[in-house]
Amino acid sequence: MTTRPTAPNVVVHVPDNDRLEAITRNVLNLRVALGSKATIEVVTHGPGLDLLLPSTDTAIHAGLEGLQAAGIRLVGCRNTLDSRGLSDAAVPPGVRVVPSGVAHLVHRQQDGYTYLRP
Amino acid sequence: MTTRPTAPNVVVHVPDNDRLEAITRNVLNLRVALGSKATIEVVTHGPGLDLLLPSTDTAIHAGLEGLQAAGIRLVGCRNTLDSRGLSDAAVPPGVRVVPSGVAHLVHRQQDGYTYLRP
Amino acid sequence: MTTRPTAPNVVVHVPDNDRLEAITRNVLNLRVALGSKATIEVVTHGPGLDLLLPSTDTAIHAGLEGLQAAGIRLVGCRNTLDSRGLSDAAVPPGVRVVPSGVAHLVHRQQDGYTYLRP
Repeated sequence: MTTRPTAPNVVVHVPDNDRLEAITRNVLNLRVALGSKATIEVVTHGPGLDLLLPSTDTAIHAGLEGLQAAGIRLVGCRNTLDSRGLSDAAVPPGVRVVPSGVAHLVHRQQDGYTYLRP
Repeated sequence: MTTRPTAPNVVVHVPDNDRLEAITRNVLNLRVALGSKATIEVVTHGPGLDLLLPSTDTAIHAGLEGLQAAGIRLVGCRNTLDSRGLSDAAVPPGVRVVPSGVAHLVHRQQDGYTYLRP
Repeated sequence: MTTRPTAPNVVVHVPDNDRLEAITRNVLNLRVALGSKATIEVVTHGPGLDLLLPSTDTAIHAGLEGLQAAGIRLVGCRNTLDSRGLSDAAVPPGVRVVPSGVAHLVHRQQDGYTYLRP
């Protein structure tokens, strides 16, 4: 068994919008279990981008604020923004926009992040 | 190409309950294809915990017995049990309960397990 | 931070058929973002095999042709073909058939491929 680093880096893949409340809960539970030193990044694209948009419903919006308060990094996909006719300004302050969500997920894993797709 | 170890360790992520029969079949096929020396662990949380609960339908229950007979390790999430008002005793004998299913999936990958999310 | 290889190898897991158009788009965007030297392999099994079958709808068929034109490797699962009473000849030329889709996904990761489950 490999010795585990004390503070893992985790990337969470959110490509769809049908389970956003459950996924938000999963990520907050992960923060509690892994501790504040772990880096947890949520990468959204396609319908999953709804997690980051202000127009979504109250529960999702509260979830987004909870994620930010817990120090979860949030990432949106510019390909998806473009396909909806939106600019980078459509996502809240503090959310990072990357050119391609799927490519970013590959790069993060190449950088040693552990992948989860809840 | 890396040389493959003869007996891989695999962790299978089950966060939802909409495809439990298909996932059970996938895991049993994986057992046949990888052989009896491979370690295969199924980690359930959220609605995915239904795979392990005795109250689910006949096909799921038969699937659970089939997984146990095939030497598949089964893991449930205590966060999920708590949220349903259940204790560890709600899952059948032989099923392991971990504090957080999602954190366990991170730890397993840090230990070298290969991740699948069927 | 690990230095990233210039041409990553990526394996894309498609176990279901409910989002085939979105997944096709994801994979084509990944090709553009990672460049022509990256190896991208799409592994289908269960209902996900529909991506590779000629009988599926027009949009899916166009997607399949687009993936092949973009140099994406396509893989189908013989367990799934068998369960539908189909032979290897049911998938188009250029598609590889492996004995078990899920086992192939494990082997690819053991060989260093990065896993995505869009």
